[in-house]
Amino acid sequence: MRLAEIAEKIGGELIGGGDFDVRDVADFAVASPDSLSYAESERQLKEPTEAGALIVPSGIDPGRPAIRCENPKLGFARAIALLRPPKPFVPGIHPSAIIDEKAKVGSGVSVGPAASIGPEADIGNGCHIGAGARIGEGVNLGPDCIIHPNCVLYPGATLGARVVLHAGAIIASDGFGYVPDGSGGVVKFPQTGTVVIEDDVEIGACSVVDRASIGETRIKRGVKIDNLVQVAHNVTIGEGSLIASQTGISGSVTLGRGVIMGGRVGVADHVEIGDGAIFGAMSGISKSLEGGKIYLDAPAVEISEARRRMVVYSRLPEISRRLRNVEEKLEDTETC
Amino acid sequence: MRLAEIAEKIGGELIGGGDFDVRDVADFAVASPDSLSYAESERQLKEPTEAGALIVPSGIDPGRPAIRCENPKLGFARAIALLRPPKPFVPGIHPSAIIDEKAKVGSGVSVGPAASIGPEADIGNGCHIGAGARIGEGVNLGPDCIIHPNCVLYPGATLGARVVLHAGAIIASDGFGYVPDGSGGVVKFPQTGTVVIEDDVEIGACSVVDRASIGETRIKRGVKIDNLVQVAHNVTIGEGSLIASQTGISGSVTLGRGVIMGGRVGVADHVEIGDGAIFGAMSGISKSLEGGKIYLDAPAVEISEARRRMVVYSRLPEISRRLRNVEEKLEDTETC
Amino acid sequence: MRLAEIAEKIGGELIGGGDFDVRDVADFAVASPDSLSYAESERQLKEPTEAGALIVPSGIDPGRPAIRCENPKLGFARAIALLRPPKPFVPGIHPSAIIDEKAKVGSGVSVGPAASIGPEADIGNGCHIGAGARIGEGVNLGPDCIIHPNCVLYPGATLGARVVLHAGAIIASDGFGYVPDGSGGVVKFPQTGTVVIEDDVEIGACSVVDRASIGETRIKRGVKIDNLVQVAHNVTIGEGSLIASQTGISGSVTLGRGVIMGGRVGVADHVEIGDGAIFGAMSGISKSLEGGKIYLDAPAVEISEARRRMVVYSRLPEISRRLRNVEEKLEDTETC
Repeated sequence: MRLAEIAEKIGGELIGGGDFDVRDVADFAVASPDSLSYAESERQLKEPTEAGALIVPSGIDPGRPAIRCENPKLGFARAIALLRPPKPFVPGIHPSAIIDEKAKVGSGVSVGPAASIGPEADIGNGCHIGAGARIGEGVNLGPDCIIHPNCVLYPGATLGARVVLHAGAIIASDGFGYVPDGSGGVVKFPQTGTVVIEDDVEIGACSVVDRASIGETRIKRGVKIDNLVQVAHNVTIGEGSLIASQTGISGSVTLGRGVIMGGRVGVADHVEIGDGAIFGAMSGISKSLEGGKIYLDAPAVEISEARRRMVVYSRLPEISRRLRNVEEKLEDTETC
Repeated sequence: MRLAEIAEKIGGELIGGGDFDVRDVADFAVASPDSLSYAESERQLKEPTEAGALIVPSGIDPGRPAIRCENPKLGFARAIALLRPPKPFVPGIHPSAIIDEKAKVGSGVSVGPAASIGPEADIGNGCHIGAGARIGEGVNLGPDCIIHPNCVLYPGATLGARVVLHAGAIIASDGFGYVPDGSGGVVKFPQTGTVVIEDDVEIGACSVVDRASIGETRIKRGVKIDNLVQVAHNVTIGEGSLIASQTGISGSVTLGRGVIMGGRVGVADHVEIGDGAIFGAMSGISKSLEGGKIYLDAPAVEISEARRRMVVYSRLPEISRRLRNVEEKLEDTETC
Repeated sequence: MRLAEIAEKIGGELIGGGDFDVRDVADFAVASPDSLSYAESERQLKEPTEAGALIVPSGIDPGRPAIRCENPKLGFARAIALLRPPKPFVPGIHPSAIIDEKAKVGSGVSVGPAASIGPEADIGNGCHIGAGARIGEGVNLGPDCIIHPNCVLYPGATLGARVVLHAGAIIASDGFGYVPDGSGGVVKFPQTGTVVIEDDVEIGACSVVDRASIGETRIKRGVKIDNLVQVAHNVTIGEGSLIASQTGISGSVTLGRGVIMGGRVGVADHVEIGDGAIFGAMSGISKSLEGGKIYLDAPAVEISEARRRMVVYSRLPEISRRLRNVEEKLEDTETC
């Protein structure tokens, strides 16, 4: 594709080499001379690259065919989508798919081998149901969802438009709730609620979203969840939140809008987190925290305080020696 | 259902409104006037609820149709089961299910679409095998087990009665064992043992229980395991233990009866934990610990000690300043 | 099997009881008189065992039928493989398997019930594709791979020879990459790269290896990965590395050769780890670290330093008291 065409389609400013024929996209360090890559800063441009063309920030001239974008990474993401367009799913029901006669399947839907769709399920137009995916009774999918192979949606789950579930994701499984029965055992607290996943949510491989015990677990519009994440019963995740891999969100937690969690964050039950809070990887959240701040550590505190703690923690052996030293001096003072 | 009927069936004391027609159950804060909810204390009753009827503790009168129970949450769990009874599985083998001719399937069994049952497997009466579940060769299921969609039971696993496996759970996969081969590589230590899961165990979505290397991994009666939990080879989990999400239990660990682990606890290999030990979320257990105590932190210590450590940890920047201060004073003392 | 035959086949030195008829292998403490077990030291031999025969280290005579091996555990691993040989997969395509007409399937391949193989996939000779496994379009499997039930390989993944994937493992799912779109939302950074898994790699149940965003995620020869492990996009894991359960490796991380990670290690993105580095369980790696050393704690530091920190951490309440004590003494000094 000609660089000029790419510039136009991604909304960037062509600064030379409009006829350059871009064959592929590539990472900066390993790009070949017929590839397009991107740089985020003047500093990065000092590192070597053989990229034939580059997307760069405003005000920079990399001395080769280039496009300027305010946000080069965003421009590059759009360029990748142009040069490596996703292969469209071909509408059609594979003969080995098992669709209950009481299910409703929209137009333009593709259903893969050995997938199954239960009674009263309603599959929106343009959805793709991957091989071996299990769509339970009464599940409702908005248009253009992509359910990758071997996902499981328990009965009654509701998904909005353009929801993507990666392989092995489990939606609306039972929450973990038991009540002591008074004689040493437990009784299961019935998990009879549901899960609602709003438009444009993406959920990673082998992640699990439990149904509510009575009401609903809700993943709001535009939330992105990585692999192997646990979302327990009755959780609400606010719009546009980003949750990285192996994070665990306990029961009845409410996250505000635009919350960001690094990898393997843990959240205790019933906690409420304000809009825009950001948590570093491996944070442990044991109480409600206000939004708009960056937190770290377990228990999570604001990052400046967390760093102070961690610095002193790293000097604990020295602290211990210095304390001993002080004690000895004091003893000397006392004895003399 | 009339409130009087609910009171009788859950074994509670009706204290008014026996003719009240309960239409549904609901959480306290969001209950509608035709719903039943519950309160665990006088204090909770001071918060607003529109619930038409309540289950309350002994000695409390909420001033509306109500049932008294010694344990209101337990009573409510039973009421949910009455008002939202689980939909029974309809016995029958889906035509797309693949059952080996050498498998034995009991009466009243239901097998979902595209599920497969291997040779010599023995499926007890009343079991439900979900869509796409894989029952390996020689697997033995007691009566009334529920195997949710896309679970995998490797050959030879044995389950007792009423075991529930949530979607994507993997039972009797190989343990992680390798031996250095003396020339820089490793040889797999064969994983030839098995897994035994006793009666009334429930295991969460995408949890994994590995087979033993030689003997058996055993999950004893009544154990409840949440989602995304790792149970390594040769582990024994004692009766009635509760293991929350993302916990990892290393090889050859033995947990006693009634052990409780919060989310994401980690247990080092060969550790033995006594009956009734309780571990707070994110505890890390590096050595054997006696039962009947509450533990926290990594490495896990008794909770009172853990809290003392954590309090001082949270004050480390202050500790560091105070130590510096003391040192300076001592220097002043010395110089004068 | 006669003990003499076992000795010969495992390359050990028979030191008596060559005619002993070994019926099974067993763990040391629970072995029966007709079983073979092993001991790693003189000390272990002082503990009771009823094992009829033992594999022992050089220079030790256990006073019963025995084989000496330089590495008794390695010898025992080989003996298990002799006495409990894995049941071979019978070549053949199950009639319920769904193989695209444009897929290429080698000789001696076995494909289980309801498994599916996409167009242009290439399955090497001797592979076993378990029930319900999903082999995507254009996936390439070397010879003798074992893909356990319900695994998912997204389109384009490449596996070498003898790769083993345990049940529910997901290969080449999308990495977690989003770019702020400048108006409060995010745009998906396309995940268009691939995954290459080299010869003799084994990956545990419900583990996930994401495809690269542009280039490749690569798991090199002989790597062994346990259950529920996250390997993010663009990661490289060096030859022979061992990664225990629940570990999470963030995007663009490079691990050297022979790196060992205990359970639930976390690695921040873009970190580089040198050859032979060893990490204790629950380590958190936030920056690049050189090889050949043992690390622990979060953030991970060399184990000797980590232990010093942990010792002082465990004494924090005492440190706090001693500091208070010192402060009081100083005040007394000042006032007198």
